[in-house]
Amino acid sequence: MPAPIDFYFDFSSPYGYLASVKIDKLAENHGRAVGWHPILLGVVFKQTGGQPLTTIPLKGDYSKRDFARTAAFLSIEFKMPSTFPIATQQASRAFYWVQQQNPGAAKALAKALFRSYFVEDRNISSAETVAVVAAGLGHDRAAMLAALNDPAIKDKLRQECDAAIAKGVFGSPYIIVDGEPFWGSDRLDQVDKWLETGGW
Amino acid sequence: MPAPIDFYFDFSSPYGYLASVKIDKLAENHGRAVGWHPILLGVVFKQTGGQPLTTIPLKGDYSKRDFARTAAFLSIEFKMPSTFPIATQQASRAFYWVQQQNPGAAKALAKALFRSYFVEDRNISSAETVAVVAAGLGHDRAAMLAALNDPAIKDKLRQECDAAIAKGVFGSPYIIVDGEPFWGSDRLDQVDKWLETGGW
Repeated sequence: MPAPIDFYFDFSSPYGYLASVKIDKLAENHGRAVGWHPILLGVVFKQTGGQPLTTIPLKGDYSKRDFARTAAFLSIEFKMPSTFPIATQQASRAFYWVQQQNPGAAKALAKALFRSYFVEDRNISSAETVAVVAAGLGHDRAAMLAALNDPAIKDKLRQECDAAIAKGVFGSPYIIVDGEPFWGSDRLDQVDKWLETGGW
Repeated sequence: MPAPIDFYFDFSSPYGYLASVKIDKLAENHGRAVGWHPILLGVVFKQTGGQPLTTIPLKGDYSKRDFARTAAFLSIEFKMPSTFPIATQQASRAFYWVQQQNPGAAKALAKALFRSYFVEDRNISSAETVAVVAAGLGHDRAAMLAALNDPAIKDKLRQECDAAIAKGVFGSPYIIVDGEPFWGSDRLDQVDKWLETGGW
């Protein structure tokens, strides 16, 4: 089986959320697995001078409209969170902690966290909320809270962000297929064709 | 017949060029005309703090790759211009000068200018080159060169940029359908569905 494709995202990214709903099935259609990589866009933006879309004049108002419209266009549930954007260190650390034990469970947790934030309007920036969402999937709440403070897990997230930047990741979602980078949920059609044809 | 849809673009915008190839047919499929509005992104970017994609770290290299890949994905001829981005005052003024006499001819000129820049790698920032391209469509070269220096035409372009900003335009391409804004050539699928359904 060929190598997995790589899916980089920030848990606070609406387009990252939209891609997260589609990416596994899309890859599976071509016999490919997907490696999920939560990162911190704030760290990446230090490289590119980027800033959260919704804070930019004109573009900010458009973006909020586009998030909801694009979600509906793709038939994906979406509700603009009342607090946006948020810090996603805790959610990302939770992902990597679970991943060390069980990669499949980490992906299920990521989906639950995305859904908590972008459908149920729960603020997943807090360790407490992340632990509650994880507990809903059977993870031990106290162990999760301890893990979120574990220096090794904090290091793991830093390393993942550094590795992403080294690969050129500058936004969310950012998908790499056999070395070819695709930025944005609106490139999923090209990812699909790239997987089918091997490139053009 | 319902009102035309509005298509804003900068002649130096690769995604604007891609949209320009598709937009008329797309609208025509729904019985709609398209009003073309060349603008100067540099003026718009003063509102938003934007900057040319290709000058941004990481994003710049990606963008050049994405221009060519997306053009091929859409089966549109494209060659990255050797000088990029360029000033597009002259091309835009030429458009508005012709438009005052014949809107259909203005659109034909816009297509020829886009093609000169993004297929034939001719630098359309110069009045001389714009006049040569226009002459190829039967416009009087000397009259065109005079028009490009006409204060009334310069004013017309300024007014068009101001009007675009007043409507919230912050990028290229930017398409407005019955008040609904769409940014980017990757929103043409949504424009298509919006025209079909009247919105969602």
